[in-house]
Amino acid sequence: MSFTEIVVRKDVQLENAILLEGLPGVGNVGKLATAHLIAELGATKCTEIYSSHFPPQVLIEESGEVRLVNNELFYWRGKKDARDLLFLTGEYQGMEASGQYELTLKLLELAKEMGVTTIYTLGGYGQGKLIPEPRVLGAATSLEMVERLRKVGVEFIEGEPGAGIVGASGLLLGLGKLRGIEGGCLMGETSGYMVDPKSAQALLVTLQKLLKIKVDLTELEKRAEQVDEITTQLREMESESPDEKQDFNYIG
Amino acid sequence: MSFTEIVVRKDVQLENAILLEGLPGVGNVGKLATAHLIAELGATKCTEIYSSHFPPQVLIEESGEVRLVNNELFYWRGKKDARDLLFLTGEYQGMEASGQYELTLKLLELAKEMGVTTIYTLGGYGQGKLIPEPRVLGAATSLEMVERLRKVGVEFIEGEPGAGIVGASGLLLGLGKLRGIEGGCLMGETSGYMVDPKSAQALLVTLQKLLKIKVDLTELEKRAEQVDEITTQLREMESESPDEKQDFNYIG
Amino acid sequence: MSFTEIVVRKDVQLENAILLEGLPGVGNVGKLATAHLIAELGATKCTEIYSSHFPPQVLIEESGEVRLVNNELFYWRGKKDARDLLFLTGEYQGMEASGQYELTLKLLELAKEMGVTTIYTLGGYGQGKLIPEPRVLGAATSLEMVERLRKVGVEFIEGEPGAGIVGASGLLLGLGKLRGIEGGCLMGETSGYMVDPKSAQALLVTLQKLLKIKVDLTELEKRAEQVDEITTQLREMESESPDEKQDFNYIG
Amino acid sequence: MSFTEIVVRKDVQLENAILLEGLPGVGNVGKLATAHLIAELGATKCTEIYSSHFPPQVLIEESGEVRLVNNELFYWRGKKDARDLLFLTGEYQGMEASGQYELTLKLLELAKEMGVTTIYTLGGYGQGKLIPEPRVLGAATSLEMVERLRKVGVEFIEGEPGAGIVGASGLLLGLGKLRGIEGGCLMGETSGYMVDPKSAQALLVTLQKLLKIKVDLTELEKRAEQVDEITTQLREMESESPDEKQDFNYIG
Repeated sequence: MSFTEIVVRKDVQLENAILLEGLPGVGNVGKLATAHLIAELGATKCTEIYSSHFPPQVLIEESGEVRLVNNELFYWRGKKDARDLLFLTGEYQGMEASGQYELTLKLLELAKEMGVTTIYTLGGYGQGKLIPEPRVLGAATSLEMVERLRKVGVEFIEGEPGAGIVGASGLLLGLGKLRGIEGGCLMGETSGYMVDPKSAQALLVTLQKLLKIKVDLTELEKRAEQVDEITTQLREMESESPDEKQDFNYIG
Repeated sequence: MSFTEIVVRKDVQLENAILLEGLPGVGNVGKLATAHLIAELGATKCTEIYSSHFPPQVLIEESGEVRLVNNELFYWRGKKDARDLLFLTGEYQGMEASGQYELTLKLLELAKEMGVTTIYTLGGYGQGKLIPEPRVLGAATSLEMVERLRKVGVEFIEGEPGAGIVGASGLLLGLGKLRGIEGGCLMGETSGYMVDPKSAQALLVTLQKLLKIKVDLTELEKRAEQVDEITTQLREMESESPDEKQDFNYIG
Repeated sequence: MSFTEIVVRKDVQLENAILLEGLPGVGNVGKLATAHLIAELGATKCTEIYSSHFPPQVLIEESGEVRLVNNELFYWRGKKDARDLLFLTGEYQGMEASGQYELTLKLLELAKEMGVTTIYTLGGYGQGKLIPEPRVLGAATSLEMVERLRKVGVEFIEGEPGAGIVGASGLLLGLGKLRGIEGGCLMGETSGYMVDPKSAQALLVTLQKLLKIKVDLTELEKRAEQVDEITTQLREMESESPDEKQDFNYIG
Repeated sequence: MSFTEIVVRKDVQLENAILLEGLPGVGNVGKLATAHLIAELGATKCTEIYSSHFPPQVLIEESGEVRLVNNELFYWRGKKDARDLLFLTGEYQGMEASGQYELTLKLLELAKEMGVTTIYTLGGYGQGKLIPEPRVLGAATSLEMVERLRKVGVEFIEGEPGAGIVGASGLLLGLGKLRGIEGGCLMGETSGYMVDPKSAQALLVTLQKLLKIKVDLTELEKRAEQVDEITTQLREMESESPDEKQDFNYIG
């Protein structure tokens, strides 16, 4: 018996909307990009999703108040050419395969009801090495979608990612296709060793063209520079001690 | 398919009652404190909860009789200023996330029916080092609750515990908040290396103020002294063999 | 979603019957004893239980035919003083806690319908060392049952087994008690290192008194002697190489 | 809560059909043989099976399009003496025992509806050493089936495979027998170290007689030769460095 409860904080109806998924994943690229868009566009929280597929855990806010781990939806009404947006973010993806499937199916149903007709999932593509100039790689539910993404600079490389896309970013597209919702995945290249705001920045440069929106990327650039500094220091330490190569861990 | 069966041994209706949770956890602080309160106040068992979320195991009593592992509720009717109390204790927490969620949701429903309006969850806060003077740290479902706990000496430290609260102590608050029940968590500081009656004692000093009750703590003090002696001996052994630091294990 | 299917090969109604459980466990003591009783008494198979709580596996018989792993019931109609018997045996216990609970609950329901009023579960009690003269230890659902077992030589030692009884042998008693069926567990002492026919033999000596039946134990004695020989050889090898003590593994 | 969705792409009714299962397994023997038959016979895809018992993963096709991992059915209408065939293949078997059982039960129901009366499951039998001349070993649901397989050259060796047959190849026979569908398993001997087209080829030689069909095996022979070359190289490397024996891993 599983438990999933959708709490509607604000009842919102969107039109021909785009769902943007940015849950935690490789390099946290998708989550960073989504969080940045939510903040810069001033999107509003409308829905909370609680589930036994998330860990049995509360987080503690600065005020001392507890908050049960969840996923959340934020909405933003489109302006000019830009379509309505619905953002999916949270602290965790569903645990285990059955949890991933159940949450994704419930979310697709909810998104359809709210007016979503397209899904873009955002993630990182771990390359296992430092990536000075991250590209944005893609996959999509149809050839039309492949073309639409290619036009804004998303690259499609045959056989990559070789293992396909695992987790919410893949499942929202795969099950979305089964449910008749078109979509695509945008993956910012990243080392996979650390949280990567530079990759998130590259993702957002492409995403702005796709969504026909314009946001300030300064904040993300600053964070990217901080990470660059740390990386440089680590590299220097590495070159000084050649015996202990590639021994720096994931830095959150 | 999961199995959970609530066996009502005594049908009890309480008024504006407080649920005190003391299931096993870090340092067994919550369980020790709850067991002590049940014994000193002479609380009465009213309910047994059996579930496939507990291990498939019977315990054997001194008489040779078997007892299926379970969780149990004990009640105590308030006197003077003290409100009615309902205690939750047992040998195990639910296994796996889904088990934790299911048991907590069933328990919240049951507690509401029995008249519970407030939940205090009791636990230990593992510091990874010996704590001569354990403080009591807190988290709560609302700012009013934070203030109520602070007034009786509970400390709120920004960003602690950093990982939030995992298990029954967290979930009862998180899901309780969703179900409209206010609550707070009281965590006695503890090393995390051994069962810690001293931390349970500190917790009870604070809890007496909060609950407006008075219980004898002598029994717990004696156990704390015994543990202190063992700890001192271990420290001496440690200082004699400086090469093998921090190598003593969890002592149940 | 779980699958459990009870296939009734022969519709049998028993009277005031005893269920004897002998599923695989420590030293396979319970399974050996049950298999021996089934063979010597000439009990008849009446029921097969298939379930997704068993591994997804078929076994291959000498003829080349496949057989899905299952649990099975055999019955024997009592004679003179001996009550009707129903035997539970199989290749596996249910996997995971939820599987153990579900199978045990279904089995209790079935056993009740078939006329079972008492349950004896048979198992081994692993002592971690060679046991030349295995005793039979016990646990039971009531003081009356404790006495009944003690009268036929079952020993009750305070605080043993310290960890209680895990698995089908424990759960049948614990859940049986909840469902109003009395019962007891008989545990033959065993090293826990190998399949132990000698412990099964000791169990059967006691069980014959309890069940008021008489069976030939020669076959089990022979197997016990074979294991004794292997053990003696292993001990000799051990004493010759004193540096590699206790390094022989479980021998099935 | 689990999710399984059967998508019928083409509504097909077969007559007295044979289901051939070739999901991934030891040496991928069954999958290779099935894929070869589908290609050579020109069988047509009719059904897709999606399930939360498969990993939450999409694969990416050369075009950049995503495809949710699934199992698929292909059909081929029999000619002359050959009966109708239904092929089951896919990227994964169901994960976990409960998933294997649920998927197999759903598939048996579906296959019966589509007209299947016999099941042959195809797999590899890992011998842990290189097999120059792989035999085809068998197991079956009845003595008649054992004879039918023996007549076309399938060997039945007492006590092999000792561990029985685990996974879809076993479960389709075991549960099929419970549901009244006859069947057999054909296992090509293989080392178990690498994907083994030679074993698949041996399997198909036997299978052609059983199914009364004729297919070109050239493609499979070529792949077998390639693997042979790699194996020879590895053996030579091995004999040159005698200290690091048997240290080559599974080669997909």
